[in-house]
Amino acid sequence: MTNVALIGYGYWGPNLARNLHELPNCRLQVCCDLDEGRLALAQTRFPHIRVTTRFDDVLQDGDIQAVVIATPARTHFALTKAALRAGKHVLVEKPLAMSSQEALELIDVAREAQRVLMVGHTFEYNPAVLKIKELLKDNQLGDIYYAYSTRVNLGRVQRDLNALWSIAPHDISILLFLLEEMPVEVSARGASHLDRSIEDVVFVDFLFPGGVTAHVHVSWLDPSKVRRMTIVGSKKMVVYDDLETEGKVKVYDKGVLKVGDGQIFGEFQYRLHTGDIYIPKIDMSEPLRNECAHFLECIEKQKQPQTDGASGLRVIKVLEAAQESLRRRGAPVEIS
Amino acid sequence: MTNVALIGYGYWGPNLARNLHELPNCRLQVCCDLDEGRLALAQTRFPHIRVTTRFDDVLQDGDIQAVVIATPARTHFALTKAALRAGKHVLVEKPLAMSSQEALELIDVAREAQRVLMVGHTFEYNPAVLKIKELLKDNQLGDIYYAYSTRVNLGRVQRDLNALWSIAPHDISILLFLLEEMPVEVSARGASHLDRSIEDVVFVDFLFPGGVTAHVHVSWLDPSKVRRMTIVGSKKMVVYDDLETEGKVKVYDKGVLKVGDGQIFGEFQYRLHTGDIYIPKIDMSEPLRNECAHFLECIEKQKQPQTDGASGLRVIKVLEAAQESLRRRGAPVEIS
Amino acid sequence: MTNVALIGYGYWGPNLARNLHELPNCRLQVCCDLDEGRLALAQTRFPHIRVTTRFDDVLQDGDIQAVVIATPARTHFALTKAALRAGKHVLVEKPLAMSSQEALELIDVAREAQRVLMVGHTFEYNPAVLKIKELLKDNQLGDIYYAYSTRVNLGRVQRDLNALWSIAPHDISILLFLLEEMPVEVSARGASHLDRSIEDVVFVDFLFPGGVTAHVHVSWLDPSKVRRMTIVGSKKMVVYDDLETEGKVKVYDKGVLKVGDGQIFGEFQYRLHTGDIYIPKIDMSEPLRNECAHFLECIEKQKQPQTDGASGLRVIKVLEAAQESLRRRGAPVEIS
Amino acid sequence: MTNVALIGYGYWGPNLARNLHELPNCRLQVCCDLDEGRLALAQTRFPHIRVTTRFDDVLQDGDIQAVVIATPARTHFALTKAALRAGKHVLVEKPLAMSSQEALELIDVAREAQRVLMVGHTFEYNPAVLKIKELLKDNQLGDIYYAYSTRVNLGRVQRDLNALWSIAPHDISILLFLLEEMPVEVSARGASHLDRSIEDVVFVDFLFPGGVTAHVHVSWLDPSKVRRMTIVGSKKMVVYDDLETEGKVKVYDKGVLKVGDGQIFGEFQYRLHTGDIYIPKIDMSEPLRNECAHFLECIEKQKQPQTDGASGLRVIKVLEAAQESLRRRGAPVEIS
Repeated sequence: MTNVALIGYGYWGPNLARNLHELPNCRLQVCCDLDEGRLALAQTRFPHIRVTTRFDDVLQDGDIQAVVIATPARTHFALTKAALRAGKHVLVEKPLAMSSQEALELIDVAREAQRVLMVGHTFEYNPAVLKIKELLKDNQLGDIYYAYSTRVNLGRVQRDLNALWSIAPHDISILLFLLEEMPVEVSARGASHLDRSIEDVVFVDFLFPGGVTAHVHVSWLDPSKVRRMTIVGSKKMVVYDDLETEGKVKVYDKGVLKVGDGQIFGEFQYRLHTGDIYIPKIDMSEPLRNECAHFLECIEKQKQPQTDGASGLRVIKVLEAAQESLRRRGAPVEIS
Repeated sequence: MTNVALIGYGYWGPNLARNLHELPNCRLQVCCDLDEGRLALAQTRFPHIRVTTRFDDVLQDGDIQAVVIATPARTHFALTKAALRAGKHVLVEKPLAMSSQEALELIDVAREAQRVLMVGHTFEYNPAVLKIKELLKDNQLGDIYYAYSTRVNLGRVQRDLNALWSIAPHDISILLFLLEEMPVEVSARGASHLDRSIEDVVFVDFLFPGGVTAHVHVSWLDPSKVRRMTIVGSKKMVVYDDLETEGKVKVYDKGVLKVGDGQIFGEFQYRLHTGDIYIPKIDMSEPLRNECAHFLECIEKQKQPQTDGASGLRVIKVLEAAQESLRRRGAPVEIS
Repeated sequence: MTNVALIGYGYWGPNLARNLHELPNCRLQVCCDLDEGRLALAQTRFPHIRVTTRFDDVLQDGDIQAVVIATPARTHFALTKAALRAGKHVLVEKPLAMSSQEALELIDVAREAQRVLMVGHTFEYNPAVLKIKELLKDNQLGDIYYAYSTRVNLGRVQRDLNALWSIAPHDISILLFLLEEMPVEVSARGASHLDRSIEDVVFVDFLFPGGVTAHVHVSWLDPSKVRRMTIVGSKKMVVYDDLETEGKVKVYDKGVLKVGDGQIFGEFQYRLHTGDIYIPKIDMSEPLRNECAHFLECIEKQKQPQTDGASGLRVIKVLEAAQESLRRRGAPVEIS
Repeated sequence: MTNVALIGYGYWGPNLARNLHELPNCRLQVCCDLDEGRLALAQTRFPHIRVTTRFDDVLQDGDIQAVVIATPARTHFALTKAALRAGKHVLVEKPLAMSSQEALELIDVAREAQRVLMVGHTFEYNPAVLKIKELLKDNQLGDIYYAYSTRVNLGRVQRDLNALWSIAPHDISILLFLLEEMPVEVSARGASHLDRSIEDVVFVDFLFPGGVTAHVHVSWLDPSKVRRMTIVGSKKMVVYDDLETEGKVKVYDKGVLKVGDGQIFGEFQYRLHTGDIYIPKIDMSEPLRNECAHFLECIEKQKQPQTDGASGLRVIKVLEAAQESLRRRGAPVEIS
C-alpha cells in the first residue's frame, strides 16, 4: 500500500484522484491545491482525505511516499525537484519540464534520491496504442512509410503554454514509443490567432533516421474534437481514432505494390491493393488507471517506469527543436 | 450549340464526356486519345461520335469550336497553346501548365487569339464551396483565423507529377477563391516513400497578408479517402466534408470570446462559446456539369471564365513557391 | 439536506450513488445490498457511508428520509410499499411494479403516507428529450405522423424479465411524455432465442387516438449499441440519437407536401421538400443527476414528481397490453 | 449478342438502359415508354437507339429477342405475359405481379413458351449479399437467431402501391435468399399518413420454420436514407449497411454464451463475448449490371435464372400474407 498526495486539483487532477482512490494498493491521503474552491470540491468527493494549500506540508509529511503532480506545466520542474529531494516518488504530468536542461537535472536528482520519476505520457498506457505497438512488433504493416496525427478541439485555451507544448507531447510520445527512435529533423509552423504571443494552432513535421516521416496537427481552436493517428506501411495501414467506440484501431489490408523490375527507363509500375479491414478487440481498461497502477508497481518493485525521466527528456528535446523551427517559420531544425 | 472535341479519355475524360454529352447546348463530336483501347471504350459509350488518335486532325477540323483537354499535366501547355492558335476555345484540366512562365504565355496567346481559356478548377463550381463563399460574404464567420484541408486517398499514384502538383491545385484554388487574396509566404514538407523522386505525401502551410493562415495535406498513399476542409472564424466555424451525403457543409456556432480589457498584466481571459450547428441545404448539381456549362456560356456570351488563365496562373505561382520550399525542407518561401 | 439510503448496488446503483453523493442537498448515508461483494465495492468508493445487507434496518433508521431503489424489477413493489409505509420518500427504478394492480396499490399507499413516489423514467429528465418536447410544443414539426425507436445492445441478458419489460419502459415513457396521450391499441411480436421463456427481441406497434403511430424495437442481442428515435411530422422530422456526441437531436426541414385539391379522381400529388438541417445545442447535464435533483426538490417542496406513480402506472398498462399481444403473436390489443 | 428492348424509361429505366448499353453481349435497340418526354431523354442519351410509344411494335419486331420491363407494378403481369407469348425473354422489375395467381400464370406461360422469365430481385446479385450468403454457407455465424432490416427514405411516394409492395420485396427476397426457406407466419402493421388508402410505413414480422425470426421496416416517409440489415447468429453477427462505402458488411465476433448445464433450477447463466470485427473486402461490381449480365447469360445458355418466376412467386406469397395481416392490424397470418 502506497500513501499518495495529489498536487493540483484543476482540470486533470480529478481524473487522477478518481483513479488513485480506486486502486487497491494506493491510499490517496492528501490533495493539495492553491485554490480553496477546488479543495472544497475535492473534499466533497473524497470526504475522508485531507486537503491543504501548503505544498511544504506535504513534503514534510513522512507518511506520504509518493506525489502525483498535475499543476501548470511551468511549475513541474520546481515541484518535482522539491518532491524528489524530500524523498517522494513522483508522477508528474507532461511535459516533464520546460527545457531539456531542467529535464536532465530532474533525472539526476531522481537518481541521487533513488526515487521513481515518471512522466504522465498517458497514451503509452493506452490499450489501443499498445495494440498498434504489437502490430508493429509483429511486422504486420511492413516497412513504415509515415504517420500523421490530428489532435484538435475547441477548448482549454492556455495562457502560459502554446498548443505545441500543451498538446503535442501526446503525439510525440506516441510516435517515439511506436517508432523507437528519435527524429533527426523537425519543422514546425504555427499561428497565434487569439493571443499575439501564444500559438493556438501548430503543425509539426518530423524526419526519422530511416526515412520515416511524421506530421502532427494540434490546436485548441477547432469546431470538432479529433484525436486520430494514421500509420502507413508498405503492407498495411492503421487508423487509430481515440474517439471511436466500436473501432478505435482499424487495420487496412491496403497498399501500393511495385510491379516490374525498374530496369526499363528506371521506372516502376504501381498497383493498388485493397483487401479486408480488421478491427482488433481493444482492452477497455482506462489508460490513466493503467498509468497510475504502473507508477505504484514501479514504486513497489523498484522498477524503472516505461515513461521515465529519459522519456520525458526525449519529448522535450523534440519540443525544443519544434519551437525553434516555429520561431524560424518552418525552417528545418536538426536534433542532435 | 457548340461543337466540342475531348482530348484525353483516360481517368478524368469519361466524366467530361458524360457531362458534355448531356448538356443541351453542346455537341460532343470527337474524342481524341493516343490509346486505341481508350478510344474503343469511348466509341462504345458514345457510338455516334468520331474517335481519333491524331490531335492535328482535331485542330484542322473547322467544325470544332472548342476543345476540352484532359491529358497528363505535362502536355497541358503544348496542347492548349496549339489549340488556342488553331482558333479553338480551351477548357484545360488543372494545373494549367507546369510553370508560371508557361501560364503567362498561354494567357497571352488566348488574348491574341480572342479565345476563351479556362482551367478546370472544379471546386469553384461546387455548390458546397459556393455556399461557404456566401457565408463568408455575409460575414457570418466573423474574422477568418485559419483554414486547413485534407485531401488524401489510396489511389492514382502519379509517375510524372508529385502529390503537390497533382492534388493540391484543388485546395489552393478553393483557398484563393474563398479568401480572395494570394498568400505571401508558403512552407512545404513532403516525402517520397514509393519513388525516390516523387513526393507522395505533401504538407503545405500558407500565410496570407492579413494574418490568415492555411494548411493543406495531400497524399495518394492513405488508407481512407478524405476530402475535408475546416475554416475557423472568430464567430463561427465551418467544416466542409465533400464525401458526406447529408451534411457536406456544417456551420458551427462556436468560438472563443475574449473577456476583459487586457489592461491587467496585458492579459485577456478566454471563454468558449458553443451553440447550435446548422447544415444548410446544398444544391445537388454536379460540379463538373456546372463547370462545363460555364465554359459553354463563356464561349456563347464571350465572357471571361471564373477560372480563367489568371486564376490558373495564381495557383501555379503558389505551387512553384511550395515546390521551392519542399526542396528546402520546409524553409519559408515568399510569393511576390 | 435530505438523508438518503440507496437500496441495490448492482448494475445501476453505482450511477445513482455517484449522483446522490455529489448533489449538494443530499447526504448519501447508507447503501444496502444483499451481496457483500457489492457492498465492499460501495464502501471503497464511499468510505464515509454505512453499508448493510438488512433492508429493515434502513426502514427503521429514523435519520433516513428517502430511499432510492435500484433492485431487480420483481422486488420493486414489495420494497417500495414497505419503504412508503415506513414513512420514506421513494425513487424507484422502472418499471414501477410488475402489474397495474400493484402500481395502483403503490399510488394509494404513497397518497395515504403522504410521501413522494417517483419512478426512474430517466429520459424524461434528459435534456435532448426536453428539447424535442419544446420543438413539439412550438409546433415546429407540424402534425405528428409517427415515431419509431430502436434501443438495442449486446448486454445485460435478463433472467427474470423479458426485453419488453426491461428495456421498453424507456421508449414508452418517452413516447407518452412527448405525445401526451395513451395509445388505444398495441401490437407486439417477440422471440426467445437464448432462453425458451424470455423474449430477448421485441417489436411493439402503437396506435394513438389521433392516428399517430409508433414503433419500438428493443433487444439485448445485437452487435451494436443503438439508442435512436425518429419522429416524423408533416412539416419537419427529428432524429434523436442518444449516442451521438455532436448531434444528439437533428431537426430536418423535410417533408412531403400535398399538391392539388384532390378533386380530380380524388387524388393528390405529392412533392418532396428538402431544406436545411438544424442541430440545436443540448444542455450537457447528466439526466440521472437531473432526475435525482428533481426527487430531492419534490421532497423539499412537497411537489408531485414529473414521473410520479400515475406515470409509472401508464407505462405498465402499455407493457401489459404489449405482453398480451406478444402472447397472441401480434394480434392487436386494446388499452382501455 | 442479344437484341434487347427496354420497356419503361421512368425512375429505374435509365439505370437499366445504361447497364444494358454497356454490356458487351447486349445490343439495346429499342426504348419504349408512353411518355414522349421520357423518350426524348432516352434518345438524347442513346442517339443510336429507336424509341417508341407502341409496345405492340416491340412485340412484333422479330429482331428483338428479349425485353426488360421497368413499368409501374400493376402493369407487370400484362406486359410480361404478352412479351412471353410473343416469344421474348423477359426480365421484369419486382414485384413480378400483383398476386400469386398472376405469378403462377406467368410461370406457366414462360414454361410453355420456353422463354426465360426473370424478376429483378437486384439484391440477389449484390456482392455484399453474396458475401453474407458465403458466410452463412461456411456456418461462420453459428445458428441464426434472427435478422432485421430497415429500408427507409424520403422519396418516391407511390400512388398505386403501398410501401409493403413497393419496397419490401427487396428485403423479402434477401431474407428468402439467405435463409433458403419460406416463413410460416407473418404479422404486419402499417399506417397511411399521407393518403388514407396507401400505407407509407409498414413493419413486418416473420417466423421461419426452424424458429428464426425476422423483421422488416419500410417507408418512404423518413428524414434519412437507411438500407441496413442485421443478422444475429449464435457465434457471430453481421451488419450489412448498403450505404457504407468502407464497411458495407461488418462481421462481429460477438455473442452470448450459455454457461452451466441448466440442471440447477433449470437455469442457465449467460456470458457475453466480444471479439474482433472483420470487414471483408466486397467486390465493387454494380448489382444491376450483374443482374443484367445474368439475364443475358440465362438466354444464351438456356439456364434457369437465380431469380426466376418461382422466386418472384415466393416473394408475392409473403407479400400477400403480410397484406392480409396489415388488414387485420397485426394479427398473425399463416403461409401455406
